[in-house]
Amino acid sequence: MIAEKVLFLVLDGISDRPCEALNGQTPLSAARTPVLDRLAAEGVCGIMDTVAPGIRPGSDTSHLALLGYPPQDYYTGRGPLEAEGTSIHMTAGMIGFRCNFATVGGDGLITDRRAGRISGTGPLSEAIREGVDLSALGVGFRFESGAGHRAALALTGEGLGDAVSSNDPKKEGARPLTIQACSDDPADEKTARACNEFIRQSAEILARHPLNAQRLEEGLPPANLLLIRGAGKMGAFPPFQERYGLSGSVISAATLISGIGKVVGLEHIPVPGTTGSVDSDLDAKVKATLGELERKDFVLMNIKGADEAGHDGKAIEKRDFIEVIDAALEPLLALSDTLIVICADHSTPCSVRDHSADPVPVVIRGPGVRVDPTVRFDEVSCAQGGLNRIRGCDIMPIILDLINKSHKYGA
Amino acid sequence: MIAEKVLFLVLDGISDRPCEALNGQTPLSAARTPVLDRLAAEGVCGIMDTVAPGIRPGSDTSHLALLGYPPQDYYTGRGPLEAEGTSIHMTAGMIGFRCNFATVGGDGLITDRRAGRISGTGPLSEAIREGVDLSALGVGFRFESGAGHRAALALTGEGLGDAVSSNDPKKEGARPLTIQACSDDPADEKTARACNEFIRQSAEILARHPLNAQRLEEGLPPANLLLIRGAGKMGAFPPFQERYGLSGSVISAATLISGIGKVVGLEHIPVPGTTGSVDSDLDAKVKATLGELERKDFVLMNIKGADEAGHDGKAIEKRDFIEVIDAALEPLLALSDTLIVICADHSTPCSVRDHSADPVPVVIRGPGVRVDPTVRFDEVSCAQGGLNRIRGCDIMPIILDLINKSHKYGA
Repeated sequence: MIAEKVLFLVLDGISDRPCEALNGQTPLSAARTPVLDRLAAEGVCGIMDTVAPGIRPGSDTSHLALLGYPPQDYYTGRGPLEAEGTSIHMTAGMIGFRCNFATVGGDGLITDRRAGRISGTGPLSEAIREGVDLSALGVGFRFESGAGHRAALALTGEGLGDAVSSNDPKKEGARPLTIQACSDDPADEKTARACNEFIRQSAEILARHPLNAQRLEEGLPPANLLLIRGAGKMGAFPPFQERYGLSGSVISAATLISGIGKVVGLEHIPVPGTTGSVDSDLDAKVKATLGELERKDFVLMNIKGADEAGHDGKAIEKRDFIEVIDAALEPLLALSDTLIVICADHSTPCSVRDHSADPVPVVIRGPGVRVDPTVRFDEVSCAQGGLNRIRGCDIMPIILDLINKSHKYGA
Repeated sequence: MIAEKVLFLVLDGISDRPCEALNGQTPLSAARTPVLDRLAAEGVCGIMDTVAPGIRPGSDTSHLALLGYPPQDYYTGRGPLEAEGTSIHMTAGMIGFRCNFATVGGDGLITDRRAGRISGTGPLSEAIREGVDLSALGVGFRFESGAGHRAALALTGEGLGDAVSSNDPKKEGARPLTIQACSDDPADEKTARACNEFIRQSAEILARHPLNAQRLEEGLPPANLLLIRGAGKMGAFPPFQERYGLSGSVISAATLISGIGKVVGLEHIPVPGTTGSVDSDLDAKVKATLGELERKDFVLMNIKGADEAGHDGKAIEKRDFIEVIDAALEPLLALSDTLIVICADHSTPCSVRDHSADPVPVVIRGPGVRVDPTVRFDEVSCAQGGLNRIRGCDIMPIILDLINKSHKYGA
């Protein structure tokens, strides 16, 4: 039998290094994970450098590699991917940015880079869209609220560059910076001018918005400034379906990941109750994924919470959340005719509190897979597996071959 | 905990193939190596193609790869690296050569390619430096004595090429050759002319030198001819410290290795009593290395003797010297906060009596490393290890990641 469907599950940042709090075990090796272990026992395991050995990946560069879009060819910064994930449809040449709603005081100093972790900013974004004077801006724009204090901006028009700095001083108590071109290229200067004008106009609009007046009355920090960063020019991504002959969906609560899925042409399926944190409704996510597999050939599912625990340096919380993930994955065991691929996009060691280049474990389970002796899904056990050590850009070709969709090279 | 210091130990040519004299074991697997085995047990192991699978490396190309300078981009022949190791400071564009002091008879035939393994050639080199007529030479030069019968030459000036042959016929009883340009490029012809003129003038100077008159009186072969080979144009090496943010030293008795260290900007620390052979004072070398680790972030230590035994085809001597090395490494076990990387630069099988492309064992031991089940440091055991199979150019990125000095690619 040959599988026809593919479930590609990325357990974001799940792998780690030995943790003191776990007596030298990793959260993944310390966790009780009967479901992942059974998938490992029934599949072929390995370790994977999602970008290359020793290269510390972002979630963006690693996901591009995993989907077969080498970041060295396709990555142009986080902004366009976040913008796409924030419901701005990006087309080639647009300049995308990540934004925060922030709070600036009367003295011009930033008092809260996240405006008290404001949420429900839709009316603010609408006011900005309606209020910004395009003739003063000199370019077109899209602006959308994201989750919480987050938002995204895209500039449209001719002759725009993406080598510009940010206005975010990255700390509170400092003055917002002026965005500057990072080159003498007039295209970068045009983008920098447009950004500064957009920030100026949007601040005026936010300052007089009734929602902010109400926040002040309630003693909450007003969202009266936009911090924008991560500039990147949207590239041209050959569509996933044309490239691989597979229809596909992406299920992720992280806008960056859903954005990456969308730019390559996967349909983003929002799942109520999923948060990208350890409080996410994983059962709903798994259920939605199984539903999508009825309709589509390929589903990319990302579960983010373990990464967050790694960034926070919380080894025990990370271990415990891995056990929650494992329990939620129990329905996968019944998918006997689907190729299941499970890996991380990078390690997020609790001792580093950031991504590292340590290779990630990977398991492929399904029809046709050569079952190896590995029976545990963890960093050290998978290194003994039948896949040995592969790279992120290898995984889509391996998947296509296992589902009989690869093309013969030669005769 | 994250290590801040790195000890990079290259056991030159230590790996091998099964040896008949050792009942099919390799010298490394036959040796009793409790220290290396304990490091293997406490670390993560693997095998490594220092250049690429099946590519038979020189010590020069492999060390460049191990230091993260891909030889395909940076290697321009052994001459410039030997010259740098022989205290000639090479700058980009200089043409470097390895030289031997040799003996030529009255009939013009070479009687000893190493002039009776002469040593103490300093006065001869000084006479050459003072006596060579630059106007006839047409270029500038540096010339320095090395260990024993060895020396190094560098030519300086505009329009010099490095595609020239050698005057060494590689056997005794033959006439020295005329150095020729290997192309029609006038730059190569200029270098060939300068070399031949340098050989002619230096032979005249050596012929009348009192040290040679004294050798003749003592019945020793005079050093009356220079054999020069290994021409290469010195390239530009981005400094190690700028590239990696690490200060570093190199400890090696082999001029080639110290030269490679020096061209990338490592400080060469000479250690009295070390010879690059099986009679080297390894305790002094290890002590010097531990001392350097107090001052520097990164120390490259090379221990050469096992390679020599492999070149001589002496399996039992190689095994025994490996046990001597192991005993000398005992102080490394106490370096709990240092990242220790141990590997070979290539295999030197006794059956081949030269380098081979068989992958080399590698172990990384220190804070943050994922400990694998491997408990023996040998060619076959390490192939079961958690690093699987990597390449020489992967090792510096992996080191930088483990000491938290790598840069994130993406967000």
